[in-house]
Amino acid sequence: MRHIAVFDHFLNQNHRDQIVKTAADLGFAVTYCTAVDQLPEAERAKYEVLYGNPAPEILRLFPNLKWVCLSSAGVDKYVDDAIYPSSDVVLSNSTGSYGVTMSEHVLMVALMLLRQMPTFQEAARQHVWHRMMPTRSIFGSRVTMLGTGDIGTAVARRMKALGAASVTGVRRTAKPADPAFDRVITFRELTEVLPETDILVSALPHTQETAGVLNRERISLLPQDAILINVGRGTVLDQEALLDALRSGRLAGAALDVMVPEPLPADHPLWTAPNLIITPHISGNMSLDYTCDVDVDFFCEDLVRFAHGLPLLRAVDRKRGY
Amino acid sequence: MRHIAVFDHFLNQNHRDQIVKTAADLGFAVTYCTAVDQLPEAERAKYEVLYGNPAPEILRLFPNLKWVCLSSAGVDKYVDDAIYPSSDVVLSNSTGSYGVTMSEHVLMVALMLLRQMPTFQEAARQHVWHRMMPTRSIFGSRVTMLGTGDIGTAVARRMKALGAASVTGVRRTAKPADPAFDRVITFRELTEVLPETDILVSALPHTQETAGVLNRERISLLPQDAILINVGRGTVLDQEALLDALRSGRLAGAALDVMVPEPLPADHPLWTAPNLIITPHISGNMSLDYTCDVDVDFFCEDLVRFAHGLPLLRAVDRKRGY
Repeated sequence: MRHIAVFDHFLNQNHRDQIVKTAADLGFAVTYCTAVDQLPEAERAKYEVLYGNPAPEILRLFPNLKWVCLSSAGVDKYVDDAIYPSSDVVLSNSTGSYGVTMSEHVLMVALMLLRQMPTFQEAARQHVWHRMMPTRSIFGSRVTMLGTGDIGTAVARRMKALGAASVTGVRRTAKPADPAFDRVITFRELTEVLPETDILVSALPHTQETAGVLNRERISLLPQDAILINVGRGTVLDQEALLDALRSGRLAGAALDVMVPEPLPADHPLWTAPNLIITPHISGNMSLDYTCDVDVDFFCEDLVRFAHGLPLLRAVDRKRGY
Repeated sequence: MRHIAVFDHFLNQNHRDQIVKTAADLGFAVTYCTAVDQLPEAERAKYEVLYGNPAPEILRLFPNLKWVCLSSAGVDKYVDDAIYPSSDVVLSNSTGSYGVTMSEHVLMVALMLLRQMPTFQEAARQHVWHRMMPTRSIFGSRVTMLGTGDIGTAVARRMKALGAASVTGVRRTAKPADPAFDRVITFRELTEVLPETDILVSALPHTQETAGVLNRERISLLPQDAILINVGRGTVLDQEALLDALRSGRLAGAALDVMVPEPLPADHPLWTAPNLIITPHISGNMSLDYTCDVDVDFFCEDLVRFAHGLPLLRAVDRKRGY
């Protein structure tokens, strides 16, 4: 019998049954835990596979580890070879399960900013009936989407379905993307497209190449009525520059679901910036049943491949960072 | 020369030029005003056409009036024959120009309720990083849409594009509707579909038949995690019953853009109901350029027909109420 440990913070009984059955058919036994101290030290050598959200610092406690399958899409805390008992350990993620929830989050905050909801809601809190303010629409807007993977594609499809005038995908290398993108450019061309952007969305992971992509100069290239949405990783954005742009009215609004640091301290200036919607890294959290269902399907799919010695479908290149 | 008076609260110079040119080609002169006292009393007899938002009580001041074209879709204040100088005056509206802005409003508030934004925003106001709460998605939801006209159809198309499991249209009489509706039923069958509704949206006008359609009994048939959105007219809904349902947790949330009375007085209990998003009748206001552009196109289109004695495309049946 081979062994899997699942670090569980989101599974229901159906999910657990599905994993146990898939594993049993392949000769694996499954142990569920929520933290490593629930797994007796003397037994840790038996686990070949970890699934879920094991803390990066505990991976080295499993001397015979072969595969870590993260339930998240983001992998930035897991790219350092030094955290693994051996550099041969394969890392995979659950990219593909977050497109629905994150794209719906992006639509929501985009509409809230275009329709001036922060101002309307402040008036409503004061019981004031305040009507006339210009609103705008996704219909007819020019969208620039940083990242053309699962999440970027899910956003692009929905923006087009709502009648966006154009959706430009921006990625590391010129490569074909989903037809929902009107065109795909590389980061080198980003400065040309920013002045013609109404809605800028980043779903970029944290990598050496993406850190600081949305710097002060690039933010200043956006039109004054543009909005900026970040659901990828906070390191992509120069937060000081964003704060300055919002405070001076150089930018119409922004929505950050990711930031530096997380959690945001209670006295951080982002909390009180004008026209900034802050959400606590929830656009892709595991609270949507659909996300959990797909996440478990993905793990079971790759478990079959792992058992048969096949390459995993969602293996991560740790050097590249995604 | 024949004469048109435009009651202008939303036009830009391009719109005014477009109307003047269309009118001139048909032998009409155009006068712009924002209130009737800007039109000298002695000259009011010359106007055959009023366009925009003339107050209902001033229509009788125009003895030779033949056509009132409202820039709104709602006509409830204009259905009484007694407000007109003659019962032969034709009333038309601008149905068709509000689908984009109102459907984007519906998507926004639906997502805000499904994703628990009222709670997340309250935490953010207190600078609290509060993460774990169940969220839901439009993807996979069952939508019931009261009203299958321009606005209902625009909502239905977007809900389907976002992956709603089903969209049921509800209307007065069984009649084919846009293919975005999975099925269309009449109000008689509404009680059967309410227990299987995740998102209930009303875009119904105020008429004798729609008043009180969403009564206490029907609200009680919704599942506990359902949400209710009203962008039509406030008279459709029993507000007391809604308040009770929200306060007791019998209903997950609601968003009202229309209510009784408007404006809502500062001490009205709706302002403080839990999980209720109040907006001041803005889902379809004239602040979106697209809406104004289409509105003017519609007026010019019907002006050509009026000049040639043809039936108007958006004539309203005052007895029916829309």
